[in-house]
Amino acid sequence: MNYSPLIDQLIDAFRRLPGVGPKSAQRMVLHFLEKDRNGGKALAEALQAAMDGVGQCEKCRTFAEEAVCRICQNPSRDQQVICVVETPADVFAVEQTASYKGLYHVLMGHLSPIDGVGPDEIGISFLVERVKSSDIREVILATNPTVEGEATAYYIAEQLKQDELKDRGLKISRIAHGVPVGGELEYIDGGTLVHSLAGRQTLG
Amino acid sequence: MNYSPLIDQLIDAFRRLPGVGPKSAQRMVLHFLEKDRNGGKALAEALQAAMDGVGQCEKCRTFAEEAVCRICQNPSRDQQVICVVETPADVFAVEQTASYKGLYHVLMGHLSPIDGVGPDEIGISFLVERVKSSDIREVILATNPTVEGEATAYYIAEQLKQDELKDRGLKISRIAHGVPVGGELEYIDGGTLVHSLAGRQTLG
Repeated sequence: MNYSPLIDQLIDAFRRLPGVGPKSAQRMVLHFLEKDRNGGKALAEALQAAMDGVGQCEKCRTFAEEAVCRICQNPSRDQQVICVVETPADVFAVEQTASYKGLYHVLMGHLSPIDGVGPDEIGISFLVERVKSSDIREVILATNPTVEGEATAYYIAEQLKQDELKDRGLKISRIAHGVPVGGELEYIDGGTLVHSLAGRQTLG
Repeated sequence: MNYSPLIDQLIDAFRRLPGVGPKSAQRMVLHFLEKDRNGGKALAEALQAAMDGVGQCEKCRTFAEEAVCRICQNPSRDQQVICVVETPADVFAVEQTASYKGLYHVLMGHLSPIDGVGPDEIGISFLVERVKSSDIREVILATNPTVEGEATAYYIAEQLKQDELKDRGLKISRIAHGVPVGGELEYIDGGTLVHSLAGRQTLG
């Protein structure tokens, strides 16, 4: 289509978002133009500010606008436990449960040799250094339960199995696989059931 | 949640879009931060430019960055037919069919007394003036086939039934109601079927 260059350009810009096709992009643009020009300006400013201002925490690598993120800065968090996740979205997900009180380490990806992502690209040596140079007593590997996530967790565990760390009593753990709460056994895949049975917990 | 003020602010800004909840907004924000910072900046600039630069065409009232929109400016369009629609999105929809060659008139809404939208709010007298002051021979009423859209079409038709215009031979028409192409009769509502039968066309 060819209406107004500014509108066409804005529709194209919205289409760069995941899951936004031409119709949705058009609806977003017309929404702002018709009903919420201030909202459109606020979005433009917030986007500009975030694109320029958000970097990575120098301790845990999650997104932060300060040098060190709020979680790493918080003295009430348990400084001896770190939870290794793939993305900042995973940090959000774990934080929303409000049940974890330790720190994080964000890989910003997972090992994927096909895509050229090796240990260096996701900074595994940086993680190992962090564990070595601080008083951490447990590393929880919370990468995704996918093939790549499992491989990444396994690789990190191997890198952390060093005499120095073993002597210090470092514990390396992996989040549990099993049936999701609220699910029905009938609809759960075999692999998950096998893990769920193997990881069964004694009740009494 | 409380991670980074810039990120929280950006998530809130995206949530002003129709159909975007907290999860989608978060995915959009992380998409730009993780994978496409240039895309984020491009969107910010395009938004700012469109919010500031897009106004309404002074002839047909659709969105345009120039005083007169490209359709009204185009000398190859039939200047004697105008199609009255509710929103610029409707102009886009009709234009995409590439079968209509006349001009448009965008009401930017429909009559809705409950919401305080009367003839003045959607500029019906402006439309009547436009028809009177130019050489238009047909007005196609293409408001939505909803209660409000029908009422708006009816009201406009009444306003255009003036002796002066009648003498000029002005034709006032309404888009056809009927079964959508590709639909199945079984699933079409009764009201539409009644219109479809009443509006039947002779084949031979």
